[in-house]
Amino acid sequence: MNADQFFEIVDGWQLKITKFDPEQLIHYGSNLLCGNGYLGYRGTLPEWGKEEYQACIVSDTYDMADGKWRELSNAPNGLATELLLADQSLDFSPVKNLNTNLSFNYQYGIFKRNSKLKNVINRSSADKLEVESERFASYSNLHLIANKYQLNNLNQDKLLKIRLGIEGDVWDLNGEHLTNLKNDYETEQAVLYLQGTTVESKIDLVTAMSFNFKQGLVKNMRIISRAKSIYLELTIQPENNSCKFERNMVVYSSNDLTDPLAAAIKTAVQAREKEYKQLLIEHQQCWDVKWAVMDIKIKGNLLDQLAIRFNLYHNIIATPAHSEYLPIGARGLSCQAYQGSAFWDQEIFNLPMFLFTKPEIAKNILKYRYHTLDGARKKAQDLGFAGAFYAWISGKTGQELCPDFFFKDMISGRKIRNHFNDWQIHVSPDIGYTIWKYYQVTDDLDFIFNYGAEMLFEIARFIHSRVHYNDRQDYYELIRLLGPDEYHENIDNNVFTNYQSQFVLKKAIYFYHLLLNKYPEELARIKSSIELTETEITAWQRIAEKFYLPEPNQANLLEQFDGYFELEDTTAEVIKKRLINNQEYWGWPNGIAVFTQVIKQADVIQLFTLHDIFNQDILAANYDYYEPRTQHGSSLSPSQYGIIAARIGRSELAYQYFKKSAFIDLMSTNKAVSGGTFIGGIHTAAAGGIWQLIINGFSGFKLTKSGLEFNPALVEEWEELEYKLNYRSAILQINLTPAKLKIKLLDMQTEKPVEIKVKVLAREYILEPDSQLQIKL
Amino acid sequence: MNADQFFEIVDGWQLKITKFDPEQLIHYGSNLLCGNGYLGYRGTLPEWGKEEYQACIVSDTYDMADGKWRELSNAPNGLATELLLADQSLDFSPVKNLNTNLSFNYQYGIFKRNSKLKNVINRSSADKLEVESERFASYSNLHLIANKYQLNNLNQDKLLKIRLGIEGDVWDLNGEHLTNLKNDYETEQAVLYLQGTTVESKIDLVTAMSFNFKQGLVKNMRIISRAKSIYLELTIQPENNSCKFERNMVVYSSNDLTDPLAAAIKTAVQAREKEYKQLLIEHQQCWDVKWAVMDIKIKGNLLDQLAIRFNLYHNIIATPAHSEYLPIGARGLSCQAYQGSAFWDQEIFNLPMFLFTKPEIAKNILKYRYHTLDGARKKAQDLGFAGAFYAWISGKTGQELCPDFFFKDMISGRKIRNHFNDWQIHVSPDIGYTIWKYYQVTDDLDFIFNYGAEMLFEIARFIHSRVHYNDRQDYYELIRLLGPDEYHENIDNNVFTNYQSQFVLKKAIYFYHLLLNKYPEELARIKSSIELTETEITAWQRIAEKFYLPEPNQANLLEQFDGYFELEDTTAEVIKKRLINNQEYWGWPNGIAVFTQVIKQADVIQLFTLHDIFNQDILAANYDYYEPRTQHGSSLSPSQYGIIAARIGRSELAYQYFKKSAFIDLMSTNKAVSGGTFIGGIHTAAAGGIWQLIINGFSGFKLTKSGLEFNPALVEEWEELEYKLNYRSAILQINLTPAKLKIKLLDMQTEKPVEIKVKVLAREYILEPDSQLQIKL
Repeated sequence: MNADQFFEIVDGWQLKITKFDPEQLIHYGSNLLCGNGYLGYRGTLPEWGKEEYQACIVSDTYDMADGKWRELSNAPNGLATELLLADQSLDFSPVKNLNTNLSFNYQYGIFKRNSKLKNVINRSSADKLEVESERFASYSNLHLIANKYQLNNLNQDKLLKIRLGIEGDVWDLNGEHLTNLKNDYETEQAVLYLQGTTVESKIDLVTAMSFNFKQGLVKNMRIISRAKSIYLELTIQPENNSCKFERNMVVYSSNDLTDPLAAAIKTAVQAREKEYKQLLIEHQQCWDVKWAVMDIKIKGNLLDQLAIRFNLYHNIIATPAHSEYLPIGARGLSCQAYQGSAFWDQEIFNLPMFLFTKPEIAKNILKYRYHTLDGARKKAQDLGFAGAFYAWISGKTGQELCPDFFFKDMISGRKIRNHFNDWQIHVSPDIGYTIWKYYQVTDDLDFIFNYGAEMLFEIARFIHSRVHYNDRQDYYELIRLLGPDEYHENIDNNVFTNYQSQFVLKKAIYFYHLLLNKYPEELARIKSSIELTETEITAWQRIAEKFYLPEPNQANLLEQFDGYFELEDTTAEVIKKRLINNQEYWGWPNGIAVFTQVIKQADVIQLFTLHDIFNQDILAANYDYYEPRTQHGSSLSPSQYGIIAARIGRSELAYQYFKKSAFIDLMSTNKAVSGGTFIGGIHTAAAGGIWQLIINGFSGFKLTKSGLEFNPALVEEWEELEYKLNYRSAILQINLTPAKLKIKLLDMQTEKPVEIKVKVLAREYILEPDSQLQIKL
Repeated sequence: MNADQFFEIVDGWQLKITKFDPEQLIHYGSNLLCGNGYLGYRGTLPEWGKEEYQACIVSDTYDMADGKWRELSNAPNGLATELLLADQSLDFSPVKNLNTNLSFNYQYGIFKRNSKLKNVINRSSADKLEVESERFASYSNLHLIANKYQLNNLNQDKLLKIRLGIEGDVWDLNGEHLTNLKNDYETEQAVLYLQGTTVESKIDLVTAMSFNFKQGLVKNMRIISRAKSIYLELTIQPENNSCKFERNMVVYSSNDLTDPLAAAIKTAVQAREKEYKQLLIEHQQCWDVKWAVMDIKIKGNLLDQLAIRFNLYHNIIATPAHSEYLPIGARGLSCQAYQGSAFWDQEIFNLPMFLFTKPEIAKNILKYRYHTLDGARKKAQDLGFAGAFYAWISGKTGQELCPDFFFKDMISGRKIRNHFNDWQIHVSPDIGYTIWKYYQVTDDLDFIFNYGAEMLFEIARFIHSRVHYNDRQDYYELIRLLGPDEYHENIDNNVFTNYQSQFVLKKAIYFYHLLLNKYPEELARIKSSIELTETEITAWQRIAEKFYLPEPNQANLLEQFDGYFELEDTTAEVIKKRLINNQEYWGWPNGIAVFTQVIKQADVIQLFTLHDIFNQDILAANYDYYEPRTQHGSSLSPSQYGIIAARIGRSELAYQYFKKSAFIDLMSTNKAVSGGTFIGGIHTAAAGGIWQLIINGFSGFKLTKSGLEFNPALVEEWEELEYKLNYRSAILQINLTPAKLKIKLLDMQTEKPVEIKVKVLAREYILEPDSQLQIKL
């Protein structure tokens, strides 16, 4: 598949779409998303509505409208636009070769469009009505979407009416969330608004809109108030055959503050006063700060450079960095799919990039898990366990949002009881693992005292209650699991889950003793607060010591779970022919992959990317074994295979996985609808995975006990790779070429400068402030 | 449903079928089965073939012809008959109101038929050709089926030809078993034979046939040898318009002796010499000995009396009492369904009747389990466990005959992985339980030394390897089970399985200590032979002490398994409407019962019939709870509900269950085909269950630690119940009327007479030799 089928490269930050394809509507909406971690406005034309998947997803607005799925709500669309020429509506319906160009700037998240309307002939047949518009979701004011809109080649003789509105009838996945709609035009402030209340959670959600004409005269204005929308119809006198206006869409919810309507109106007024240009400058400054540490630069392939930025951009805007109470959605804020909720993806895929660039964001993400501990405790208790069993699908409160039944048997139509919510337990140790990583990178003991230790203890408690002791084998084991490979449910001793669980038990014990020896008051406080007993610690110790950790067999292979090797040995291509219905789920209970060795995604390989405890031979043997058996039915998979490919020196294979992963959304290789369920939107975990594949894969970066390690495996295609790492308050700049690795200590944000140990290709170096390492490869 | 739709009662032993119904063909074949534990000859006319489900199932002939099911083979039909009148074949095709009467004598297993052929008009239109035949499967020579055949009202003018043959083309369920067919007419011995070899197991199976004309002259004879059969075509000169002959079908296999052909010919010759009348006398003597202790007599309802005998008869002929190496098939020898193999039914349903009447048969059945220990050991090992995990479907060797996939999803057609063979573990403790019961009844220490202890130890070993210790709950539990209720797979702590398992662990420990203290050499021998260690015994002790045995809750209810009460609470009638296809399996993984409290059969109730450890209130509460939620989708279920109904004083309900259970086959209330699979044939477990329902239910008999106990709950309908019990070599005769219970010690087959303690309605009595108790009720 070729990129230029989908877009043209403008430069390393920008793309444009000149061959509009209505088949790609869902993907345009997500790929060209304006977002800022508070809201996400899909890449749709202002003239479009719900049929074109218009939506503005707002964080922290969880609501259940269909009795099954609790998801984020969509704000009424404050950029709704209708154009009438001589009282005839102009048609922007998405058709093949709609004369519209789209472009997007991933440096600042700016969506632009340029449309030429074929059927609206002006003075000469050559001239066509041109519509230009541009917008961004502001990072300096998260509630704001600023918009510029311009019409050119207007026929002075024809009556132009522009309807600027707020449309409440938006694209909802699982039911309409807003009721009790209220709208008005605040004439004093000249602000239009539409407010609604979510059906179940009773959150007030407001969209306000202000505008300002920069060219063209408003000759008349009337209000059109419909059941679910409000529009201002403006009769316009063009100036020099053009008209131009600026518009501000402002979104607030009652979860942000007590009077969201007042705040929205106020912000809309202020934004109008500030004007688009200034708003953009302030917004760009925010981005410049981010990119200063988060950008990854490569030389040698502009398409790859653009794709990298696309992925970094999407991981950033998916993340509610402004809050410590909100999760990163598996589809970010690109649509309502996956409930705007956190999965294990959040810690294992989205977070590492922040951890090593802006650790305060990683901290916020982990604090979100702290604030949802009660949800995790309740889930554990409901299922008969102790401690914290984190939700498989975690929204605001951490209560389990994953229903018992969600897939359906496509042949019988009967619902399927999938066990994502009760058997896929690795999410808890995954969070524990990440707490440890955060601590390793930041040395942030305060976090451990106030959040980390309690979470780890509760996770250890959960593991304690979840393991079983096998008396005859004399080990503790984990029975009835669902590992990262979701095609095999009800399995025992999933290598990934077992290693992760034992690791986390050990870390819980480690912190217990650290606190006991050095910070006994902190420990006493935590112990008393969660009623932790010595007996429990003894049990954790006993379990950690006797945890069943499957070892590589004679062929160096780790068996993904007990009995995996005895399953039918085949490939995804072969079994695909067994599908009765193309939309069938491949897994539990009777899908085509269940009784075979075909796996959905990296599982043993996933273990390797997290734990550097196996030698190269083992890595290679398992890579060679599992790779052909992996369907990559999950977008999480390719980046992890890529990392391990790079680690075993197969950078060209790693590069193939880079392509596969980086372009999942950009080239729309993913299915947007499966089993009748919308699963489109941005694969934020894949976006985070790209960061890992480059940093941990191509530059071979590892965090070790003693410091940092690099084993570069740069792909030939790339002449240079440059990025920054934040490690214990120091910023390092890494430059990698095929010949050389340069590591520069840029900045030291801590009082007492620490010595940073760096190991490159097995040799050790010490990095000192303002020093630079140059290592020939 | 009314019995006389199906048959007429002749007396308490015999029925006749005067309204022949071709829809009932499968049921006639099973219900009117001649059998003797070695073979079973279905109730078909001699003129019928495979289309009419003719088959003669032979024990110990396991063979796999379809690559999936290892089942018993059918012997070539040595009673095959064709009649030609004026060179025209006479048609006996089963049609509505075929002018044929069938009758069966359950006292001696005699099948009789009388047919009048409509279309063969003789001298006057009133006279019709009459065919009479009769047969039995001999108990004095297990290889023999003796047959009498007579034609009346023959037209002297028309040429009569009778073809007596051996037909190798028989009704096979899962593939043709016999290859390399060889046939001949041994002119010297005047014996016809057909021999074949089973495809997979290479067993030679021979049918020989001898005959002798008693009336009518054989004028001519020619041999018709076809690919799969051999016939003698006899041209007959009737005498007095009649002809009459005797015929002997003899079956031997190479598993019986080395030269089955020679043996078959010899037996055929001997039988011909002895003649039918004498053969019958010898056969009847064998039955008289059985009935002397096994019969159950009732007064008050002749239909019930007949039904009781029907069930006793079928349990007896299903049982290979002659061997200690063969199982009781779940359908006996009535057809090939269920592989002629033992399930847990064998010990829990078939065996008790023998245990309390002819314990040497019970012993043989248990010795079969001893001889299949290696199969059970292998199964355990293959699945990663220790000790003896008995096969769910156990044939000759005890290797697991239950395939991983057998049901199919009726909607998608896709195979289903049912877990009968790996999760339904209770079969092992069920066998252990029965060893204990055998010992309790017989005091047979020799059996314990030579068979029982080793089996119990290996079962305990298996349980040890199968339990898991729950560290946090501080108990041992059983995870991932399938209990007697087969609609709920993958469950934890099935009450039935947990109690049975703990019970058996305790008994293993008991025998270990008994042997250790009193018979150390015996123990030493066993220990050394199975490498049993002290550590294991300590572990069993620890596990038995901390075994999780769910207790009745506040409402006195035992939860069938963890979480059962949280399932949808509904009934079989309600969920039946959710069927998409009538042949769907209701259980795993996605059947209509899976997520509901609807259960297939007695499960908690089954626990009660085996363990008398709960009080009446608990029995009643659980009966009331589970009864309406039970579908009775298994023929094992009604008898167990009946026993408990009687035990809680609801003898009228017990009687309803008696009717339900006793007439399952007799009134053909069962489905013969389900999910495209033939599951017809005699429900031998239900037959055994009838004995239990009467003895343990209506007469309220229990075996207790101290002796025998009776708490009668006779149903009003019955005026008197009489049966015998064999207890520690004494024969007791029990007479029960509504007013009185008489217990008479008939016979004492032991040298040192034991005192027998009897408890009736909470009062204790001592029964001494030749004494009789008469207790007013």
